[in-house]
Amino acid sequence: MNFASDNTAGIAPDILDALAAANTGFALGYGNDPATRALERQFSTLFEREVAVFLVPTGTAANALSLAHLTPPWASVLCHQQSHIMTDECGAPEFFGGGLKLIGLPGENGKLSPATVEAAIARYSGHRPHQVNAAALSLTQATEAGTLYRPADIAGLAEIAHKGGLKVHMDGARFANALVRLNAGPAEVTWKAGVDVLSFGATKGGAMAAEAVVFFDPAIADAMHERRKRGGHLFSKHRFLAVQMEAFLRDDYWLRLARHANGMADRLAEHLRAAGLTLVWPVEANLVFALLPEDLDRKLKAAGASYYVRRADMLAGNAAAADGLLLARFVTSFATTEEDVARFSALLDR
Amino acid sequence: MNFASDNTAGIAPDILDALAAANTGFALGYGNDPATRALERQFSTLFEREVAVFLVPTGTAANALSLAHLTPPWASVLCHQQSHIMTDECGAPEFFGGGLKLIGLPGENGKLSPATVEAAIARYSGHRPHQVNAAALSLTQATEAGTLYRPADIAGLAEIAHKGGLKVHMDGARFANALVRLNAGPAEVTWKAGVDVLSFGATKGGAMAAEAVVFFDPAIADAMHERRKRGGHLFSKHRFLAVQMEAFLRDDYWLRLARHANGMADRLAEHLRAAGLTLVWPVEANLVFALLPEDLDRKLKAAGASYYVRRADMLAGNAAAADGLLLARFVTSFATTEEDVARFSALLDR
Amino acid sequence: MNFASDNTAGIAPDILDALAAANTGFALGYGNDPATRALERQFSTLFEREVAVFLVPTGTAANALSLAHLTPPWASVLCHQQSHIMTDECGAPEFFGGGLKLIGLPGENGKLSPATVEAAIARYSGHRPHQVNAAALSLTQATEAGTLYRPADIAGLAEIAHKGGLKVHMDGARFANALVRLNAGPAEVTWKAGVDVLSFGATKGGAMAAEAVVFFDPAIADAMHERRKRGGHLFSKHRFLAVQMEAFLRDDYWLRLARHANGMADRLAEHLRAAGLTLVWPVEANLVFALLPEDLDRKLKAAGASYYVRRADMLAGNAAAADGLLLARFVTSFATTEEDVARFSALLDR
Amino acid sequence: MNFASDNTAGIAPDILDALAAANTGFALGYGNDPATRALERQFSTLFEREVAVFLVPTGTAANALSLAHLTPPWASVLCHQQSHIMTDECGAPEFFGGGLKLIGLPGENGKLSPATVEAAIARYSGHRPHQVNAAALSLTQATEAGTLYRPADIAGLAEIAHKGGLKVHMDGARFANALVRLNAGPAEVTWKAGVDVLSFGATKGGAMAAEAVVFFDPAIADAMHERRKRGGHLFSKHRFLAVQMEAFLRDDYWLRLARHANGMADRLAEHLRAAGLTLVWPVEANLVFALLPEDLDRKLKAAGASYYVRRADMLAGNAAAADGLLLARFVTSFATTEEDVARFSALLDR
Repeated sequence: MNFASDNTAGIAPDILDALAAANTGFALGYGNDPATRALERQFSTLFEREVAVFLVPTGTAANALSLAHLTPPWASVLCHQQSHIMTDECGAPEFFGGGLKLIGLPGENGKLSPATVEAAIARYSGHRPHQVNAAALSLTQATEAGTLYRPADIAGLAEIAHKGGLKVHMDGARFANALVRLNAGPAEVTWKAGVDVLSFGATKGGAMAAEAVVFFDPAIADAMHERRKRGGHLFSKHRFLAVQMEAFLRDDYWLRLARHANGMADRLAEHLRAAGLTLVWPVEANLVFALLPEDLDRKLKAAGASYYVRRADMLAGNAAAADGLLLARFVTSFATTEEDVARFSALLDR
Repeated sequence: MNFASDNTAGIAPDILDALAAANTGFALGYGNDPATRALERQFSTLFEREVAVFLVPTGTAANALSLAHLTPPWASVLCHQQSHIMTDECGAPEFFGGGLKLIGLPGENGKLSPATVEAAIARYSGHRPHQVNAAALSLTQATEAGTLYRPADIAGLAEIAHKGGLKVHMDGARFANALVRLNAGPAEVTWKAGVDVLSFGATKGGAMAAEAVVFFDPAIADAMHERRKRGGHLFSKHRFLAVQMEAFLRDDYWLRLARHANGMADRLAEHLRAAGLTLVWPVEANLVFALLPEDLDRKLKAAGASYYVRRADMLAGNAAAADGLLLARFVTSFATTEEDVARFSALLDR
Repeated sequence: MNFASDNTAGIAPDILDALAAANTGFALGYGNDPATRALERQFSTLFEREVAVFLVPTGTAANALSLAHLTPPWASVLCHQQSHIMTDECGAPEFFGGGLKLIGLPGENGKLSPATVEAAIARYSGHRPHQVNAAALSLTQATEAGTLYRPADIAGLAEIAHKGGLKVHMDGARFANALVRLNAGPAEVTWKAGVDVLSFGATKGGAMAAEAVVFFDPAIADAMHERRKRGGHLFSKHRFLAVQMEAFLRDDYWLRLARHANGMADRLAEHLRAAGLTLVWPVEANLVFALLPEDLDRKLKAAGASYYVRRADMLAGNAAAADGLLLARFVTSFATTEEDVARFSALLDR
Repeated sequence: MNFASDNTAGIAPDILDALAAANTGFALGYGNDPATRALERQFSTLFEREVAVFLVPTGTAANALSLAHLTPPWASVLCHQQSHIMTDECGAPEFFGGGLKLIGLPGENGKLSPATVEAAIARYSGHRPHQVNAAALSLTQATEAGTLYRPADIAGLAEIAHKGGLKVHMDGARFANALVRLNAGPAEVTWKAGVDVLSFGATKGGAMAAEAVVFFDPAIADAMHERRKRGGHLFSKHRFLAVQMEAFLRDDYWLRLARHANGMADRLAEHLRAAGLTLVWPVEANLVFALLPEDLDRKLKAAGASYYVRRADMLAGNAAAADGLLLARFVTSFATTEEDVARFSALLDR
């Protein structure tokens, strides 16, 4: 009953197999190998256009490198105040970006609204050179609240951003979970909706450690080669990053894994609701947030359930955490089993 | 006949097996798992003292994080002018170190002499606050020239460094190759000789991607947690870094792998010498540098041998590359086979 | 009728005279001159303890250098969301601090409350190494709203900060204006109340360009020599910074200049109030904020009055700007004349 | 007899007068004043083309901002190994440049030769993304050795640089001293010869603290507004920077001041030569380097002469400092008097 995070899971079987299969013979290092070349083509096919792809081992690296690439040091990135870049990356975007600024904005259900973004752009424009103006908008898909932007939402926000001269970044650590729920194609929710750069996540989805920075306009990607190397993120035995990603994408494996994770979340949500608990946000990906009485929390933990109780301030402006209630986050993954969900459900019922 | 680099090899079998063996159940992320805890104890045992260990996926990350930790942004690192940090890390130490300066010093056989280091410390001291003074000395073991510092060499240099107020870093990307040749213990060539922080390499030695920053004084290591995270180098599924390293160290596997690589280099060196070619530096680890006539180079390459021809300026002050001769670098690894060496040797003989 | 800013004024007469008087003979550069030595003693006397002083030409430099000195790159500075460091320094603290983070907090009348600071410290503590924890608290005295912290306010906030392990910085660009109103001594409102580092402003008060970073614990100041030089802020003809400051401090000149500026602000406030206008915040220093009808604004501007109309969001949580009303900021200085205030008042009356 | 540096002098009379004259009435801050606007036009006239000008108070700021603007963080600046940016700015270029690298090159008489620059560009090109490639060439005019590049020298070096894709920066801390000796116009030795950005010095020449970054292609200058502000180098009372520079340039005042300084250096050189001492480098600006016997050094110092004895390694590859000889540097300025030179000469004669 491990619902602590999707990164408490291991490696999805096909991906581990791919590591073993690739472990034969010699290959040039630093991405100059056939597997990396093939993967680059695979990404272009996947996104229905020529893209530039840079593999890195962590989502923090993917986000920080992307944002540093889009934003000069004297500019700012608009993002949700609960986004991972804002709260959980120890200032990596600021570090890679030479001291750029993240502007955390409020938004219901973990999402930014057009009005909020429009107002922020208006505020963080002009007054040069005193103010740190906005140069990029970062959207998280799925969000930290487990909710989703629809393609039309993204298109609307991206239009506002582009009109204001901002580039659009998408943190897609849980991109697959979003896709399978939206029943949309990768292109549709990214560049066709106005996304300029995507942090394409595979680690939470089932890889050991593999993320891709995807530039939809390869013309602006060139210096990313140096950024990645200089950040210590260029693997020498690069083929082992490439084959993780290749196996993830092959035959819609990533979508199948995500569909399972989302399904487990749905089932968990159902059980929690059936037990009379309040779900805080719509369950659209693989995260479920519920308000738990403290004694139930103790009982679940004692029975071996693992999940995080988050800070209540995450709820500000969304729902009021009544006294004696905790905000609990349950995360499912490709490795969550029906048995575990059933055991957990049984605990709720008693 | 791939002698291009030790990173063209794949994953050593026991390490791949360890990845598979670890792929069971759930584990807390970010290093809060039992495998990481066990590895930390393993390192303290290995080095015969309490150490602080931080795993990262690349040698560039290990070096850059280490040097940034030892050196304030307004100070400098003394190193060999041909060291990897100086020539091949795209300014990672300068980036992580907030603009610190690397001072490249000359030295025969890829090594720094006490006189050179002493003079450099004298020069890069005082004249505050105008000059970028020296705060750290970085030694590479084995060096980029494939040569070694003896324990007494290290102790002598470290004493000079410490007397001048500098900390001592060792880039041990090929630390195992050095150890097996020196027939010395890990403690003996590091902290017992005065090394403060070690970049302990496993990737070139056989891991997929795993390096360790080892602090011999855990008291100064604390903020490295933040540095690593902020650099995007903290793995979420951290156990897969830990078990690579655990398998590398278990039952002297790392030393056996290195012994094989060194042995292959010795054999290669013998063949090159027997063919009448000049070896440029003593062969003490798994690198062999030879002066190759251009037509021999063409013949070897045509027959499928892979190796790098390096810039001739690496030879400055060491040996004169006669006209028509190239400086060729041959690197062996755990994966180099006797057959490959024999085939290569046969090409030389003809 | 120039009320645009206290930096639209020129140089106070005694300070200009001091520049001329110092322009004789030769003096060693970079602060190694007798005038600088004397000034350092003068500061220690002024603050009733040994202090370390670093002169720089701008307030942005003083703030950014101070904050970078107190805060590691992976930590954050708590400050008011309307503070100058947050809104008007183009990310200088983030730049000098290697990517540190400013956390802007709300607070009535431009001031932070103990409850707000306490909650922020609780939030930005722990969760290592994911979160950017708080390492410093920056208070502005006088605030951007023209209000003041009482010595007891500062002591209370500093106690909370120190208990949480934070250092306390004071942005004293208008420190003199605060002092004369509080009728308190420099020591009383700084280190005796728990301030660790002060940006001591002279430029707005009457200097050409001179600010001092004052460390109340000289033991932590050492590397500031390098920070200042490396930031390009160490003057070669340093005596001309020192004598500006010396003249500013001599015979309470700075306090007399500030008293005049405050008095002009009081008078302006009186006239605005008498004209039936709403003053937004208490007038405690040399800034007056009033809600102006748009047609009055046009009339005043047409008659030659100069002042800024600020963004209305500065009012959030304080007072509601009614439709058709602008938030106008009037700043007085040592150079503001009674005639100008009278002329302005006459315009209001009509 | 103060020959320690040109920055031990005070403010040239006309410049001090200009400060006083400008001290009237109010002016908008941050460069939005008429004096700044006028100065910008004056610079365009002076250089016979539209230029973009940014005033800052120190030469270190001017150099660091310029180089950071021309060079990405992962690239390098080629410069003389004895240049001020390399030895005396405490890493300011590296700091402002986000960790860029300075490559110090040798060169006779303090100057870089075409062959050296060509070889360095060849070396620091390619091998992406491992190596820190060259993006800018920085020339010092006059050099730290007191020597000059002829217009044809500059044109030759700039052509090599541009062909390699590098931009050309000139550190003109002593630009006036160079101009009057070369009998050339400002345009001729800068953009007409291929210089892209100039650090135009006035401080050593007679200002209190005023330098200008001059972009010969205003199209690339835009973000310098933010860089300067963010570096804490945008003066609020900006008119007092502008009028220093205006007075410096008016009626060739700067050239007259420089002509005097150079003349004093010539006379000093003559006396030293007449006393049988060896001059180390050609005396082309306002610096004289001589080899002094130690006892003469003691005698001169005892009699009140002030000058620096520099590190002997500055001589490497130029002339051998015989045992018992010191390398003494004498610097003259607009404030050096004929009487002082005569007194000094009399000491030599005895």
